[in-house]
Amino acid sequence: MTPTMTRPGGRSAKVTAAVHHAVLDLLTAGEAVTIPAVAARAGVNPTSLYRRWGDVGRLLADTALARFGTSGDVPDTGSLTGDLLAWGTALVAEAAHPAELALLRAAVAAEPVDPGAPEGFESACSACLVGRSTQVEAILAAAQARGEEVPTSTRVLDHLVAPVYLRALFGLPAPSVEVLVELLVERLVAPATAQAAPSALG
Amino acid sequence: MTPTMTRPGGRSAKVTAAVHHAVLDLLTAGEAVTIPAVAARAGVNPTSLYRRWGDVGRLLADTALARFGTSGDVPDTGSLTGDLLAWGTALVAEAAHPAELALLRAAVAAEPVDPGAPEGFESACSACLVGRSTQVEAILAAAQARGEEVPTSTRVLDHLVAPVYLRALFGLPAPSVEVLVELLVERLVAPATAQAAPSALG
Repeated sequence: MTPTMTRPGGRSAKVTAAVHHAVLDLLTAGEAVTIPAVAARAGVNPTSLYRRWGDVGRLLADTALARFGTSGDVPDTGSLTGDLLAWGTALVAEAAHPAELALLRAAVAAEPVDPGAPEGFESACSACLVGRSTQVEAILAAAQARGEEVPTSTRVLDHLVAPVYLRALFGLPAPSVEVLVELLVERLVAPATAQAAPSALG
Repeated sequence: MTPTMTRPGGRSAKVTAAVHHAVLDLLTAGEAVTIPAVAARAGVNPTSLYRRWGDVGRLLADTALARFGTSGDVPDTGSLTGDLLAWGTALVAEAAHPAELALLRAAVAAEPVDPGAPEGFESACSACLVGRSTQVEAILAAAQARGEEVPTSTRVLDHLVAPVYLRALFGLPAPSVEVLVELLVERLVAPATAQAAPSALG
């Protein structure tokens, strides 16, 4: 389905998947995520986990990368509005999922990774967003190739991803998905569309 | 300055302030917030803390309420754009402050409070947002009284508070405050202003 997150020379994808699964199980159950707890649940020797990930922060980041970091396929409805609506609706559904939400919460709470950490060890926070950013870029590039005027990806982050994630993280009652996403997309797409004609010639 | 958060019949405001201060100190230092650690730093008997707050979740919520829950004064520049810009700029600055940011992170990570909890024991998350909501309502009410067309407070949460907080929580590089806030406010105010004339008569 999606590319596995196994690093070159790392443990088998099967063990990695079991470890990520154990992290998500613990988070969803509201239990403390520690290396021994993850090892016990995954049926893996704790020493292997320490050797591979070093600490819980990195293990969380790697789990977030596996869960959120794949860019996969993006919607292709033929219009930017349609694509962002479909993508945003999926984002809302995902943020309402207990395991994903628990992972987002844990990522936000995790210690920021030492800036001197080796390449590939991103913070759990950036791991949560990297796949989303890639997807947004792909949606915007497709729209641009069709001749549509597009917002910046930062604007999509600020006005589509941020409200969806903030409401989920703060436990706010979500409005109906359709209404929320329509409003958000309208706000991102309408101004750009309105000035598409002159700027397409610029 | 601002009303103290002491509950009727509670401990003295001085002790409360010391306890809140200790929580913020521990969070800022990246140390674990536990009742014994807070008690030691505040110079208070742990028993008093258990009696008053019950658990760390409630202590965090109360600290968040004291730090973020006061509605205080809101900007009064004479226009909705000016007011939201001033308010948003202050929000950006506050979210960049280590103690406030650590408190936001901890609130997001905290266990949601049992829905059956007694009145007054809100979740740390809602405690973080309650004062902000009151302030936004006040800004919007003042603008409406001046005859300005205003967005809903939900829209301000989604398009001003959410991007500011999400960027802070996820450790994203902030754009210049002026540019970010101008963009946000423009987006919230411009569409409403454009249709102010017809709807003011409706």
